[in-house]
Amino acid sequence: MRNDIVLAALFALAALLLPLPAQADVLVDNANGYTLDEEGNLVRFTGLVFDSDTGRVTDLLRRGDDYPEGLETRYDMQGRTLIPGLIDAHGHLMGLGYNAIQLDLSDTTSLDEAMARLAQYSADNPTLRWVVGRGWNQERWGLDRFPAAADLDAAVPDRPVWLIRVDGHAGVANSTAMAAAGISAASQSPAGGRIGRDGNRPNGVFVDAAMGLVASAIPTPEPPVRDMALREAQSLLLSHGITTMHDMGTSADDWSTVRRAGDRGRLGIRVVSYAGSLQTLLDIAGDSMTPWLYDGHLRMVGLKIYGDGALGSRGALLNAPYADAPGETGLALIDSIGLRNRLSRLSLDRFQAAIHAIGDGANRAALGAIEELATRYTDDRRWRIEHAQIVDPADLPRFGRHGIIASMQPVHQTSDRLMAEARLGPDRLVGAYAWNSMLRNGSVLAFGSDFPVESPNPFPGLAAAVSRQDANGEPVGSWQAHERISLQQAFAAFTINAAFAGFSEDRTGRLGAGLYADFIILDRDIFDATPEQIRETQVTETWVGGERMWVRGAADAPPMDAPIGPMISQDEDVGR
Amino acid sequence: MRNDIVLAALFALAALLLPLPAQADVLVDNANGYTLDEEGNLVRFTGLVFDSDTGRVTDLLRRGDDYPEGLETRYDMQGRTLIPGLIDAHGHLMGLGYNAIQLDLSDTTSLDEAMARLAQYSADNPTLRWVVGRGWNQERWGLDRFPAAADLDAAVPDRPVWLIRVDGHAGVANSTAMAAAGISAASQSPAGGRIGRDGNRPNGVFVDAAMGLVASAIPTPEPPVRDMALREAQSLLLSHGITTMHDMGTSADDWSTVRRAGDRGRLGIRVVSYAGSLQTLLDIAGDSMTPWLYDGHLRMVGLKIYGDGALGSRGALLNAPYADAPGETGLALIDSIGLRNRLSRLSLDRFQAAIHAIGDGANRAALGAIEELATRYTDDRRWRIEHAQIVDPADLPRFGRHGIIASMQPVHQTSDRLMAEARLGPDRLVGAYAWNSMLRNGSVLAFGSDFPVESPNPFPGLAAAVSRQDANGEPVGSWQAHERISLQQAFAAFTINAAFAGFSEDRTGRLGAGLYADFIILDRDIFDATPEQIRETQVTETWVGGERMWVRGAADAPPMDAPIGPMISQDEDVGR
Repeated sequence: MRNDIVLAALFALAALLLPLPAQADVLVDNANGYTLDEEGNLVRFTGLVFDSDTGRVTDLLRRGDDYPEGLETRYDMQGRTLIPGLIDAHGHLMGLGYNAIQLDLSDTTSLDEAMARLAQYSADNPTLRWVVGRGWNQERWGLDRFPAAADLDAAVPDRPVWLIRVDGHAGVANSTAMAAAGISAASQSPAGGRIGRDGNRPNGVFVDAAMGLVASAIPTPEPPVRDMALREAQSLLLSHGITTMHDMGTSADDWSTVRRAGDRGRLGIRVVSYAGSLQTLLDIAGDSMTPWLYDGHLRMVGLKIYGDGALGSRGALLNAPYADAPGETGLALIDSIGLRNRLSRLSLDRFQAAIHAIGDGANRAALGAIEELATRYTDDRRWRIEHAQIVDPADLPRFGRHGIIASMQPVHQTSDRLMAEARLGPDRLVGAYAWNSMLRNGSVLAFGSDFPVESPNPFPGLAAAVSRQDANGEPVGSWQAHERISLQQAFAAFTINAAFAGFSEDRTGRLGAGLYADFIILDRDIFDATPEQIRETQVTETWVGGERMWVRGAADAPPMDAPIGPMISQDEDVGR
Repeated sequence: MRNDIVLAALFALAALLLPLPAQADVLVDNANGYTLDEEGNLVRFTGLVFDSDTGRVTDLLRRGDDYPEGLETRYDMQGRTLIPGLIDAHGHLMGLGYNAIQLDLSDTTSLDEAMARLAQYSADNPTLRWVVGRGWNQERWGLDRFPAAADLDAAVPDRPVWLIRVDGHAGVANSTAMAAAGISAASQSPAGGRIGRDGNRPNGVFVDAAMGLVASAIPTPEPPVRDMALREAQSLLLSHGITTMHDMGTSADDWSTVRRAGDRGRLGIRVVSYAGSLQTLLDIAGDSMTPWLYDGHLRMVGLKIYGDGALGSRGALLNAPYADAPGETGLALIDSIGLRNRLSRLSLDRFQAAIHAIGDGANRAALGAIEELATRYTDDRRWRIEHAQIVDPADLPRFGRHGIIASMQPVHQTSDRLMAEARLGPDRLVGAYAWNSMLRNGSVLAFGSDFPVESPNPFPGLAAAVSRQDANGEPVGSWQAHERISLQQAFAAFTINAAFAGFSEDRTGRLGAGLYADFIILDRDIFDATPEQIRETQVTETWVGGERMWVRGAADAPPMDAPIGPMISQDEDVGR
């Protein structure tokens, strides 16, 4: 106790000897810095000052500005490009993680190699109850048949194994997996699916709808596996320069996994969470959005609501039948009254609603429900429509009203283009992926990737936004060129607009005094680059809250068991 | 931003003008203070100094000691008795809360009064899906019949109502509750129970085992009701001087409720949590005890395991048949192998095990399992046996080995004495509620109340521990007087030993430098009091982490909607 007082006196004395102010300011210097300001203007700077205690920016410096007093550390960025950490406004955090920890067989060139990889992966991951993999392609293997249970049994006899083909349309199970799923000679192929057989005996191959017979038997991952998945997801996001993500459809298990990480100081990225069910939302948040937790790393703000399905499976709800299936118009996953009731329930407690709407029918329904509620709740509610992929041109102007946020994923346009043309025909594509129309109509356009459906890498998204061309430059001359937007607009959609969409604009999305020092270093200047160059951009460093969380190269062997935290504490001291 | 720098400079300047040390020390002065020290010696003091920033004690002062430098605030306790906040090592936090918010009819003197109270309560609590009450007694009402559904329907026709009789052996439902529970003329009375009827029609009365037909239909409370229950539980605990409690059997819902409070700064007491199921433990804690959360207010450390049932219902597992039921020996709720496996699983991740064992058979089984594991894990595991009520004298010495903690509830002895005599006969009571034997054998004796089974008030527990007599002074001359313990020993069981049982001895349980300023002010000096006076002790103030959380009188109207926090910031300034 007496020691305490002596120490306190020593600290107080030390404080007298320090320059003012006493806070530990860090300078990131000699950068080619870009940020948007509050009004969306692009601002250039060369230096960024932040308080290492709070992790918040205290100043931006232009070339020639005086350095502030009291600097503790200086990092020289040697002219490299520095931008705010990017925000993915629509992703699935744990889905990305589960995907990342699955066995990836997509680069195997023979059955033997794949089975060796399988055996090794199984040995390396003793805590997994099931071994799940993907990416095999018997054609690439030079094999004239699908792999079979017998092949897998030889590699992993004692644990269930389930490997999905590269196209996602077939899977192969080992005998243990089939036993766990209750598959026997008596099992019948379901409609739209096929159980592969040797004679009468299932041989391990399950095609299309039959895949569910095995997949439904895979248990929920145990907490250690979920923790591993979250670590991998965080590493991936940081490596792509994503410092904040909006988690669309957080389950109770997802939340407890993120909290386990947060409780232990292992939550490196920031997560704005939209619960996957009303019960989950109420259980976690109670009667209002949670406060920001873990120094701005986690908050649950609202609910993800599914308005319809997806275009590929013809589940997107259309106003008129599918061009390639004239009897079908898709699926309304919630009816009009149900949607209004749900929005009404959310609004009572000021929870935010994020409505998944892909088809023009679902978008119309969502707009109608929002307009009704928005006349009752005229304050700042930030209604979100997720995807907003296919919109009747007559409905496009409605997006700008009531501050509706169009939360879109530019890479979907390049991935889905041909499929969308098939599903809709040429005439109904006028309001498809209509980014520029959204902006012209005054909507807030927020961008994401829908990872793991797409890669979480935001740079292909930025490239798609400005070009509406895919990685091969297709189609030549762009697709609906009038819906392209400028790089600055696309950048805003991944930064300030995404922050706004998550009620976070006072914390993230740009670099300025009082906001978090979330920033990334790039291998090129994206504001002086072709779309192809933008697409290939690599992040070299990712900083969150003033801590360097990821460095290219250093992360090749990610510190899986270590808390996520600053990898390097400082480069060099500043002598003053 | 420039404002920030100006402010920082001003703060730095202000710091120069303050006396050293700079921390904000608070003096609680002129107290009749008692605490145990690390070795369990009783220490007296008159002043307590704590740092209001950390909420931790920096010094204890004896009369005549110099005041430390840098005091900010002084509270004059005017000679009142001050002791560490008490720790209840075995309670049910949410159970206490649900109990507290139920309608209490125990003091009603007529059916009309009870029904008026019911109608008012229903109107006052519009968010409740079911109205649940307890405590009615038709004899006290001067009524020659049980109340019936028709009586309740007149008071509350539109919501399910379920009212339990004072003895817990009957309940009455209104028509809405019976409909919700699917009760009809066709419903059959279960074995051991009876559905009351008018002719063929159920009249709302359900006796003994039939009560479950209605009770099982009561839905899990919604989050707002859980939040209300937690607030009430905290108020009750604080009013009885309990600043830390060990929650025995935390469910996932309980945990999310406590976290909602913690996230919003509304967790006033400290909770050491033992999960109610392994899945809940793993979902919440993952692969190790959680860290301390919310500045030492919450931690999950292990698992509550049920070894047997209770004595009253003859579920306690006995080595020989019940004296009053010669064919019965009780219930083993987990078999010997299962218990060893569970302890083994917990031990891998260093989780703590708290085994409920009431009968001598269950205690023997728990001791056997612990001894087997304790030879493998020889480090500091702190195995806990909860209740340890009836122990074969031959097994008593085993408690002291391997650091086993006997977590007992002294009030149970007075409440259960006659029932225990009936169940066991006179010969098997030698090892019953054997507190002194536990101490003599070197066990760590931790005390609690098992609230809401008993009141959370620890003072009747202290009185029972030193007297083994109930509130009426029965039995004259004490019951097994050799198992009485000294007040200092009982005080240790509610303080330092309970802290040790929850891996918290570096934070709570006594007052000393570095530990939390958790303390209570009493209306009398319990160390100069008869058992009867100890039993009637009232807490007048409860402080947690240096914040005055509860004051008698001021808490008559608890601030239900306000964050739990310091009620009064300071009494008077200290002129220096």
